[in-house]
Amino acid sequence: MNAVALLDYASVLVFALTGALVASRAQLDLVGFAFVACLTAVGGGTVRDLLLDRHPVFWVGEPTYVVIAASAALMVFFTAHLVESRYNWLIWLDSFALAIAVAAGTGVALTLDKPPVIVVLMGMTTGCLGGLMRDVVCNEIPLVLKQGELYVTCALVGSCVALVAHAQDLPQLTTLGLAALSCWGLRAGSLLFGWRLPVYKSRPPRDRS
Amino acid sequence: MNAVALLDYASVLVFALTGALVASRAQLDLVGFAFVACLTAVGGGTVRDLLLDRHPVFWVGEPTYVVIAASAALMVFFTAHLVESRYNWLIWLDSFALAIAVAAGTGVALTLDKPPVIVVLMGMTTGCLGGLMRDVVCNEIPLVLKQGELYVTCALVGSCVALVAHAQDLPQLTTLGLAALSCWGLRAGSLLFGWRLPVYKSRPPRDRS
Amino acid sequence: MNAVALLDYASVLVFALTGALVASRAQLDLVGFAFVACLTAVGGGTVRDLLLDRHPVFWVGEPTYVVIAASAALMVFFTAHLVESRYNWLIWLDSFALAIAVAAGTGVALTLDKPPVIVVLMGMTTGCLGGLMRDVVCNEIPLVLKQGELYVTCALVGSCVALVAHAQDLPQLTTLGLAALSCWGLRAGSLLFGWRLPVYKSRPPRDRS
Repeated sequence: MNAVALLDYASVLVFALTGALVASRAQLDLVGFAFVACLTAVGGGTVRDLLLDRHPVFWVGEPTYVVIAASAALMVFFTAHLVESRYNWLIWLDSFALAIAVAAGTGVALTLDKPPVIVVLMGMTTGCLGGLMRDVVCNEIPLVLKQGELYVTCALVGSCVALVAHAQDLPQLTTLGLAALSCWGLRAGSLLFGWRLPVYKSRPPRDRS
Repeated sequence: MNAVALLDYASVLVFALTGALVASRAQLDLVGFAFVACLTAVGGGTVRDLLLDRHPVFWVGEPTYVVIAASAALMVFFTAHLVESRYNWLIWLDSFALAIAVAAGTGVALTLDKPPVIVVLMGMTTGCLGGLMRDVVCNEIPLVLKQGELYVTCALVGSCVALVAHAQDLPQLTTLGLAALSCWGLRAGSLLFGWRLPVYKSRPPRDRS
Repeated sequence: MNAVALLDYASVLVFALTGALVASRAQLDLVGFAFVACLTAVGGGTVRDLLLDRHPVFWVGEPTYVVIAASAALMVFFTAHLVESRYNWLIWLDSFALAIAVAAGTGVALTLDKPPVIVVLMGMTTGCLGGLMRDVVCNEIPLVLKQGELYVTCALVGSCVALVAHAQDLPQLTTLGLAALSCWGLRAGSLLFGWRLPVYKSRPPRDRS
């Protein structure tokens, strides 16, 4: 589980930075920063562990994760004003966090020998739910559901890549590395070059309640 | 658990359709459709299983559920433009999903010989939470809390009917069928004939922050 | 666990009152009141129990909790119109519920001999998440994240006080009492005298998507 633990640490750190940036957009105080950062950082992995009945939940068994998230929030609180566009930092850091968390999630499921569909779903859960909680709690438009941007798709592709690599008996580190790279590459392409899937086009919903 | 498993399959399918319809109103892409559909389809049952410490969670143990939900989303993605009023389809499909899920939830709790209050609460949880997650994530007005419409009430009544039928030692299929029918009938009556409970009337909250 | 159980009962009761008050602001019907009241009342403690793999979840093992929450909702439904400012009642009752729930959460974690960080986090989880669910579901501005008000901070302080008192081998009741008092005192000071931490000041986020 060594590689997976490392990925969990990394995704906690980066997701915490995104949470703190969202907190800065909501102009919260220091503790509010830490709260949103921790929620974002451990949210996805927590749901993954609960779904897989994996106890203790990763951060309950190893509180260091939470300390890292809180420290990241502290750092952002005092430095966020230095960056030109916090929103750009947010979406790019989020793209890294997504990629790392997807790898971590698939890694856990692969270590537990779960069936392919579950491996993919755990990758997507770990990758997407922390950010989703962050955005729902802070009333941001969830990045997960932002129109015409690839997000869940990147998590899906990354998880599938991990599956295939694992089936080729590649070493775990390679497997998870490929998963993270493919996920991040796709997300970056979507942000930079507007790669996207066709979205559903509807008439203006007159019928919207 | 046969009848209950069947109900779980049915509610997953129908809830997935409602999730995909909401995704179409949010103009998401294909993967976004699948994401919202799966969240809606398994959300309520997942909370039920976690609360009852029932592992593996129903769809983790049997990934077919998720495949069904994703396929339903795919179908809606390509056909939703054909329907005149997606919102009407949404509320009516949701009413069926609610009724089926309530029956499934009470069925599980009855099979586990839980006390009456828990049986009722599991029926309401399974029935209401998937749709609630769908609406919160997609920024819709939660159907659960729509003013002056019976929704949670239908789940409550359906669950209580299941309790009574079970106490009469009716066969499980009859018990759950009656629960679903009473729940759906009440919801349909509320939608068609405006059946409702008195709502709380307040002065305009000047004091609202 | 006696003192802790008492605190759980008390926080369930008071949180249920706040949930019902929010339901009254959303003009729901009687069952809607009960639904929001129960969600608010058991939300935080449920997450705590799931995270600690503590089964049965407190209200699943002892349904009385839910009966209490529903009765509180019933009472509010018929009496809320009598109060002058429901919002003031809401924030003050919420401050009591927060303090009691923080004590209950830390109490559980201390009884299970969890490490200090986890004790603090369980206090904050139990205290903050019920109200957060209430506000997210009902589209209120989450009290947890209200700008320039101490809220999460109070939960943090209360939990830390419990830790210190426990380290001094004070009796459990004293320990939890001090936790609740310090948490509530801080929250009250923030509401009455505007005590607060410096919030993050940002330029108007032109870059907000």
